[in-house]
Amino acid sequence: MIPTITAFEQSPDRGQGLARDMPVRWALEEVSQPYDVRLVSFSTLREGAHRDLQPFGQIPTYEEGDLVLFESGAIVFHIAERHAGLLPSDASARARAITWMFAALSTVEPVIVQREVSLYLESDKAWQEERLPIVEDRIRSRLVELGARLGDQEWLDGTFSAGDLLMVQVLRRLSGSNILNDYPNLGAYVARGEARPAFKRAFEAQLAVFTGKASDRQE
Amino acid sequence: MIPTITAFEQSPDRGQGLARDMPVRWALEEVSQPYDVRLVSFSTLREGAHRDLQPFGQIPTYEEGDLVLFESGAIVFHIAERHAGLLPSDASARARAITWMFAALSTVEPVIVQREVSLYLESDKAWQEERLPIVEDRIRSRLVELGARLGDQEWLDGTFSAGDLLMVQVLRRLSGSNILNDYPNLGAYVARGEARPAFKRAFEAQLAVFTGKASDRQE
Repeated sequence: MIPTITAFEQSPDRGQGLARDMPVRWALEEVSQPYDVRLVSFSTLREGAHRDLQPFGQIPTYEEGDLVLFESGAIVFHIAERHAGLLPSDASARARAITWMFAALSTVEPVIVQREVSLYLESDKAWQEERLPIVEDRIRSRLVELGARLGDQEWLDGTFSAGDLLMVQVLRRLSGSNILNDYPNLGAYVARGEARPAFKRAFEAQLAVFTGKASDRQE
Repeated sequence: MIPTITAFEQSPDRGQGLARDMPVRWALEEVSQPYDVRLVSFSTLREGAHRDLQPFGQIPTYEEGDLVLFESGAIVFHIAERHAGLLPSDASARARAITWMFAALSTVEPVIVQREVSLYLESDKAWQEERLPIVEDRIRSRLVELGARLGDQEWLDGTFSAGDLLMVQVLRRLSGSNILNDYPNLGAYVARGEARPAFKRAFEAQLAVFTGKASDRQE
């Protein structure tokens, strides 16, 4: 059964692949799973029919027969559980890969999102200029810790996993800043993720929505 | 094999059960799994031996033989996968419960943590007074959405799951404010979580660290 995901009809990041359909597309591409896309407008997000799928009025959603999921992390995990390629088969290695999924979304992403909150939601505040460097210091603290753990490894724990997929995607949110330049091993890690054929296919598919060349079916 | 978790030697919340060992203790109690606790000081968190277990210098960690995990969400999931009682056996219901785990940690918790950032890390800023209500409005938006989905259900999706455990624990972070009072069904939901025998045992165990009555083994 081919799943259907939702994505923004008009890409708020102009096709940079920072919206949350991107990690889901990437995961589906890693496991060679075709998928359909239903594009939604911002006004659709507020409607009851969409809220029935996604109570917080966000994208993506994931529909597969009667199953409806939301939360990009949960959808990536669902894909990773059902198809080989995103989680190790060894039980301990699998548990550690899942740990990195949660670390990406619950420890690293929130401090990075605060930079976007400062830039986009608090740009009219007199204190934005004072608060932004504070927010960026919190990001840097996490990056120092993450970079120390990554060291010169290719991926966070052995082979590429859903944990790396989510972590690379979270770090990509910093692409509009120069912050990652100060953490060369993390920059190289992101570049390794972006060089994966599955990433490239997912990136092209979401970019095509912005350039008007999207097909409904990705395979 | 009895796992060992880490928790703060000195409870920064004075035993209110808001530190991140609490959801892990609660999950272990729900599945009747005994566990050992190693208490760590704040200075220990910065040491290399602890960073080897937890790269971000936080608690809890989870050690079970050679397996080392961190991230409370990942640890709760690990427990839920290995013991009956925290995830439904039906595949679709299980995927939805996992969705709520990610929703708790990645959609609801970050806005709630920002209130703590404002109160504790930005209390010396002239703009704290202006920013705090903005942060609280973001929390309220999420609570409206969560409350609409919960409605008059007992739990978020059928029977109590690890998704409810994490969501209740996240909402408990608001216990020092009056915010939840405006969302009676969410307040009742938290109260139902706190009334569970496993919650009470976990709460007493973490409180005992603060009152000096802790035993190393909880069973």
